[in-house]
Amino acid sequence: MGKLVLVRHGESQWNLDNRFTGWVDVDLSAKGVEEAGAAGKQLAALLKSSGMEFHHTYTSLLKRAIRTHYLMLESADRVWYPVMRTWRLNERHYGALQGLDKAETAKKYGDAQVKIWRRSYDTLPPMMDPSSEMNPKNDPRYAHLEPSAQPLGESLKVTIDRVMPFWESEIGPRMRKGENLLIVAHGNSLRGLVKHIKKIGNEDILELNIPTAKPWLFEFDSNLNLKSDSYL
Amino acid sequence: MGKLVLVRHGESQWNLDNRFTGWVDVDLSAKGVEEAGAAGKQLAALLKSSGMEFHHTYTSLLKRAIRTHYLMLESADRVWYPVMRTWRLNERHYGALQGLDKAETAKKYGDAQVKIWRRSYDTLPPMMDPSSEMNPKNDPRYAHLEPSAQPLGESLKVTIDRVMPFWESEIGPRMRKGENLLIVAHGNSLRGLVKHIKKIGNEDILELNIPTAKPWLFEFDSNLNLKSDSYL
Repeated sequence: MGKLVLVRHGESQWNLDNRFTGWVDVDLSAKGVEEAGAAGKQLAALLKSSGMEFHHTYTSLLKRAIRTHYLMLESADRVWYPVMRTWRLNERHYGALQGLDKAETAKKYGDAQVKIWRRSYDTLPPMMDPSSEMNPKNDPRYAHLEPSAQPLGESLKVTIDRVMPFWESEIGPRMRKGENLLIVAHGNSLRGLVKHIKKIGNEDILELNIPTAKPWLFEFDSNLNLKSDSYL
Repeated sequence: MGKLVLVRHGESQWNLDNRFTGWVDVDLSAKGVEEAGAAGKQLAALLKSSGMEFHHTYTSLLKRAIRTHYLMLESADRVWYPVMRTWRLNERHYGALQGLDKAETAKKYGDAQVKIWRRSYDTLPPMMDPSSEMNPKNDPRYAHLEPSAQPLGESLKVTIDRVMPFWESEIGPRMRKGENLLIVAHGNSLRGLVKHIKKIGNEDILELNIPTAKPWLFEFDSNLNLKSDSYL
């Protein structure tokens, strides 16, 4: 059975500014760039001590994940690894909240409502106006995809529901063939994968906060049940 | 019919040092990094003026091409383009000459012989000793590929013969579907593609010297015959 490493992208400029990011294509901060290089050194140490190589790697379509992935592999001297990018690994789409900072949001909608949006499993955020220029269908990276790849807002549940087909069609089958896989993605898309792997309930998954740029290694038994997991 | 852009990687450290590079995984020079960024700006200008996007992009398995590709797309704000990497786009394998500079080579083998190796279409270089630690089969990026992907030395003819299946199976079919494609590769693998596209003879192709990091745009008629080509 293959091994799996999950990594959340390094710190982005809006993580730093405490704004709802979602599908806005914000770049890494200077600290995020550093974190990605350090994560690559940890990956290189794993490759050296285990003798393993990754057979395939994955990112979302957002540059904070793509750049983290590239900088990690550059730092590990493995830029030649095959890579596939998919909207299914994108961050949760935060609808009309995207771009607002926490203080603005609380002022506009009230603290109690904001807490529900951030801490409920299946409550949708206020949806983005379809006429917004930030509608994903106006972005060339999503324009030719199915309508489900052009959301105007997602709950954590909706996010996880569109992550899982990627696990079922791509990750699971390759792991069963013994392939080692690396996924660089986002807090909420990774919550979906970890919820499935660790069989975490709907309420508890909201408590899982995945740190930026810390490679997380999962090992499985021959039935693809989790055997052990640890941060590198 | 889709459009095609070919780009040779930016200047590498060994281009600068005038050494036979081939499959040695040499990095870009500082000038090469700059060239890649500038090529990305030219690509961005093409995207803006034409409204086109690339549907797929390609690199070899060597970091000077992979890094040029990444830096170009970063500079054009298109890191999310899908990318496939293949050994078929690698530079010509220069056998036992890899790592030698021109002066060393002339001293060891004589000027006349070196000229033949560099300027003949189908003369093989002196082959690499199979026990060399630089044998491609010892490199994880080639270890699991077919033996033909583990050459010990290639003529220009052999190089082109292994580039063309990539054109036939991947580039031609996608272009016919109207996809726009970007290929970042090497002097000799690109010679193979240009030889085919422009119907250049075996002797004349040796005279074609493709400049580093200058995006070269090709447009075709509905039968995939060349209509026009120009550097951006």
